[in-house]
Amino acid sequence: VIAVAIAGEAGSYSHAAALATHRSDIRVVPCRDFPELFETVALGGAERGVVPIENSLTGSIHENYDQLRAHGLCIVGETEVRVRHCLIVRPGTTLPQVRRVASHPVALAQCAQFFAAHPMMTAVPAYDTAGSVRDLMDDRVAADAAIASDLAAQLYGGSVLDAGIEDHPANFTRFLLVSRHPAPGQRTGPCKTSLVISLANVPGSLHRALGPFARRGLDLSKIESRPIAGRPWEYVFYLDVLGDPIEVGAALAELTAETGGAGSVRLLGTYVATGTIRERQLVVKES
Amino acid sequence: VIAVAIAGEAGSYSHAAALATHRSDIRVVPCRDFPELFETVALGGAERGVVPIENSLTGSIHENYDQLRAHGLCIVGETEVRVRHCLIVRPGTTLPQVRRVASHPVALAQCAQFFAAHPMMTAVPAYDTAGSVRDLMDDRVAADAAIASDLAAQLYGGSVLDAGIEDHPANFTRFLLVSRHPAPGQRTGPCKTSLVISLANVPGSLHRALGPFARRGLDLSKIESRPIAGRPWEYVFYLDVLGDPIEVGAALAELTAETGGAGSVRLLGTYVATGTIRERQLVVKES
Repeated sequence: VIAVAIAGEAGSYSHAAALATHRSDIRVVPCRDFPELFETVALGGAERGVVPIENSLTGSIHENYDQLRAHGLCIVGETEVRVRHCLIVRPGTTLPQVRRVASHPVALAQCAQFFAAHPMMTAVPAYDTAGSVRDLMDDRVAADAAIASDLAAQLYGGSVLDAGIEDHPANFTRFLLVSRHPAPGQRTGPCKTSLVISLANVPGSLHRALGPFARRGLDLSKIESRPIAGRPWEYVFYLDVLGDPIEVGAALAELTAETGGAGSVRLLGTYVATGTIRERQLVVKES
Repeated sequence: VIAVAIAGEAGSYSHAAALATHRSDIRVVPCRDFPELFETVALGGAERGVVPIENSLTGSIHENYDQLRAHGLCIVGETEVRVRHCLIVRPGTTLPQVRRVASHPVALAQCAQFFAAHPMMTAVPAYDTAGSVRDLMDDRVAADAAIASDLAAQLYGGSVLDAGIEDHPANFTRFLLVSRHPAPGQRTGPCKTSLVISLANVPGSLHRALGPFARRGLDLSKIESRPIAGRPWEYVFYLDVLGDPIEVGAALAELTAETGGAGSVRLLGTYVATGTIRERQLVVKES
């Protein structure tokens, strides 16, 4: 049984990601927020942490890029979860009885068309998607329904009245798996390497930094810039590079030699890049 | 008198930015949120709009990058405002009388050390910094003080009990000035050109796109990636390039020829890049 830290309650999309990345049994360690999640893994309270890093509609979760840099953890894997919102009720409740619908404000906003099509329903903001299902089942929220994942319905015994009620079906969240130790040696299949670099603030520095990867035909799948506190309008860059780890290593060595004392290169991890899990069947385990 | 749209109330940091970018008298047009601001300018309800795009501590305001792409507006200028929070009270209130302090949650969070040093004070979340000062003066909020800009205190008749109470002094917000029409022809001093590009999803495409700028010694001052709805894990890139507009134009022509049918290049505007306004004296005008 592996202890896996998630931010939020059991039954959340983070929980679904934790199940998708582990074949063996896991014990979920719920954390209040992302800083607590990173702390928990760094201090050994969990072997791994599941971190949402990017949504296909709303973009990066920038706070977690900052957390990756603030802590010395390694990225050891990634997975994608389709955000497929369900209208969840207490068993026996029928659609015409649903008046007040609780969920996290982001989930409520992602179901705007559903609310427009059901004008008798009122959106009720809550602190968490899965938590609103749990509270609904425990009669601790003034609502008739909650919006969350199918997993939350299974976990807390809710009935799914409607599924896929999100406005945009191409709604995926990518999660990183972090650990105190790097992923074990075997690197088969397509690999992704994540790094964070700072560069000299001179013209052409980013172009030069990307050269070692471009010349080897390595695919840059993501670039993200984040501010450096205390140095207004200067940035660090997070890069995800796809390709053979040996080729990536050679590019990294070249990049490190080029940046020299004027910048820095830090490897965050090399791990197997997973394909999109679009309709994965989730098997709920005891947590 | 130029009509300038801002998001939020008169007296906000956006209002300070509007004053900083206009020498003549302005009439402020307060908007509920950023989409309303862009709509107001696009439909002619204001000649210009002031848009926060980036904070030196927290990073880009990504929603406004998306708004820039969604509307056909031009960027015609930029400015920076130092976020210098003040503790504002009704005239006569003394520091020991202050128990409840209202402001926007982000401003409250930026003054964490101040609250730690004054344990008798409680932070009270409100919808707006300047709005909390106005409500304080009108006795419409259950608080003894508000946190906002010096401008808000001047505008609503509050007294500043303490200034510069933010945790981090290097706290600047960069604002863009948007308009339906491009900035007039004269281009003297350092110029900034903003563009948004999409690229073929092949290895090396970003490196190749930056080449025309790097080869001319043009400085890339900012790169921001944003997701494309409906195409998971594909991005558009926003670039800010510093340098002579004629050189930048040549680089743009080369970039456009290179991307060909596989991508797109859209110019958002060429405008005078301003230096940092660190301690600008704000003169309040009637709005």
